[in-house]
Amino acid sequence: VAALIAIDWGTTSARASLIDRAGRTIETRSAPLGIQQVQDGRFAESLATLLGDWRALELPRIACGMIGSRQGWVEAPYVPCPVSADSLASALVHTPARELAIVPGAIARDEHGIPDVMRGEETQLAGAVDDGESVLAVLPGTHSKWTHVERGRLVGFETHMTGELYAVLLKHSILGRLAAPAEPQRAREAAAAFAHGAARGFASGGLGHLIFGARTLALTGELASSEVAEWLSGLLIGREIRGARTWAQRRGLDASHVRVIGADALVSRYIEAFRLADVVAEPGHADAAVRGLLRIARRAGLIG
Amino acid sequence: VAALIAIDWGTTSARASLIDRAGRTIETRSAPLGIQQVQDGRFAESLATLLGDWRALELPRIACGMIGSRQGWVEAPYVPCPVSADSLASALVHTPARELAIVPGAIARDEHGIPDVMRGEETQLAGAVDDGESVLAVLPGTHSKWTHVERGRLVGFETHMTGELYAVLLKHSILGRLAAPAEPQRAREAAAAFAHGAARGFASGGLGHLIFGARTLALTGELASSEVAEWLSGLLIGREIRGARTWAQRRGLDASHVRVIGADALVSRYIEAFRLADVVAEPGHADAAVRGLLRIARRAGLIG
Repeated sequence: VAALIAIDWGTTSARASLIDRAGRTIETRSAPLGIQQVQDGRFAESLATLLGDWRALELPRIACGMIGSRQGWVEAPYVPCPVSADSLASALVHTPARELAIVPGAIARDEHGIPDVMRGEETQLAGAVDDGESVLAVLPGTHSKWTHVERGRLVGFETHMTGELYAVLLKHSILGRLAAPAEPQRAREAAAAFAHGAARGFASGGLGHLIFGARTLALTGELASSEVAEWLSGLLIGREIRGARTWAQRRGLDASHVRVIGADALVSRYIEAFRLADVVAEPGHADAAVRGLLRIARRAGLIG
Repeated sequence: VAALIAIDWGTTSARASLIDRAGRTIETRSAPLGIQQVQDGRFAESLATLLGDWRALELPRIACGMIGSRQGWVEAPYVPCPVSADSLASALVHTPARELAIVPGAIARDEHGIPDVMRGEETQLAGAVDDGESVLAVLPGTHSKWTHVERGRLVGFETHMTGELYAVLLKHSILGRLAAPAEPQRAREAAAAFAHGAARGFASGGLGHLIFGARTLALTGELASSEVAEWLSGLLIGREIRGARTWAQRRGLDASHVRVIGADALVSRYIEAFRLADVVAEPGHADAAVRGLLRIARRAGLIG
């Protein structure tokens, strides 16, 4: 029996799940109605489009992601760490006509006072980490999040712009000029290029220098043009792992074991990079966002 | 009396100087005829346009820069380090009708065998470092070069893509979204933002993480939108200095003293960042490329 409509509402798309009390997904609906696609604040209309006949269901609705940002429907201000499912539940923000409850993002500050933020990942964590658990969890993505969860509470995190760096460097910098699309029949060479890049990323040196290797290795013919993107991907992910492990160790964490949360192709790249770095990577729940939304809805008393 | 036509021929523009035997510039001519602007290999016509009535002068002509790349007029292959004015002179490449002698670029390999290349900077070094001199010289730019010159010979170097990273991140990544143009009446705040970014760059942490501060500080209002670009510039230059100093120290160099070669606004940013890093920065010759071209032309016997 359907108990909740859980929505992951991001920048480029929105995805609604009809779930039962145990978190099992009954049905899913997606639409290209991310907050960048919604014109003139027509969020209520966009929600109606996304839900369709689900509108008739008398069910609580909860959303996470950029829908709660300043550019979203209503702003759900960042909650400072430590953050738990309970503190997220008590900071839910409702849209004016109460069509939707929105989960806030989280904010942390490093030892120099520089802020870091997340929006959406706090909900994935709530779905992928149990009460009382302590874990170093990684959420790969355009902006990867490394998170320190202590006894079920998010106590600190660090963002790495790995995915976005990869995309802008390949598309807009000189590094993309010698790159060609991957050749499916050369999968073994591609894997070797990824591993070579990752090894480079694990080693010392400045990132602004290391990335130039994607050009020079191609110039000298040591890297095929179809392998440039793989090498760069390995380098950037390797570099993230190197930097984030140092961060984790400074916090007194055991960085030889991580939980990787997510479900897309990017996650399998990270799993491979962790293998190369001798880090034990344990996969988290693939449907962490939906599970987290259910958990927060329950803590907020939206469902009994 | 004019003795040489020296041309700095790059990707976007070409600049020809008429110089006397002592390297004094008699006249300069520039044109938007960089190798990317030249269609269908019409380099001879472009040279004629650039030179105008100088074509009638019976003078040797020499060029450095991307004109000698694979996409240029004729390829002048990279010369492996160690590189001196003499080795560059003996590796000059001539265009088919001998309109122009072209200086080759230089290639170095790091301890892992990864190549690094330069094209144009080897000539600037030849003009900014005397025979027998040993110096750590920095050539700021889209691709900054840190160079190790030992008794007048370039023995190693490292490229940092600082300028290009700055440009693509501001223009094409999320970091530019909260950035606004600098406000001239707020020069003091801009300088403070640059210094704040540089301090962040000098400290530890992964670059892919640190750059995200340009977004989070703007999100929380701790950085004005007109200061985002300055902060990011300081961060990236600070990061380059941190990384390159480590590189220099690994090579046994004294990294507390550098020679900065160049003449544009970027150089003054580097001078300021070096001041903040307690590095003594000594400016090199502003017309290093022309001086280098004269020196190489003389070693090659193009002029007596």
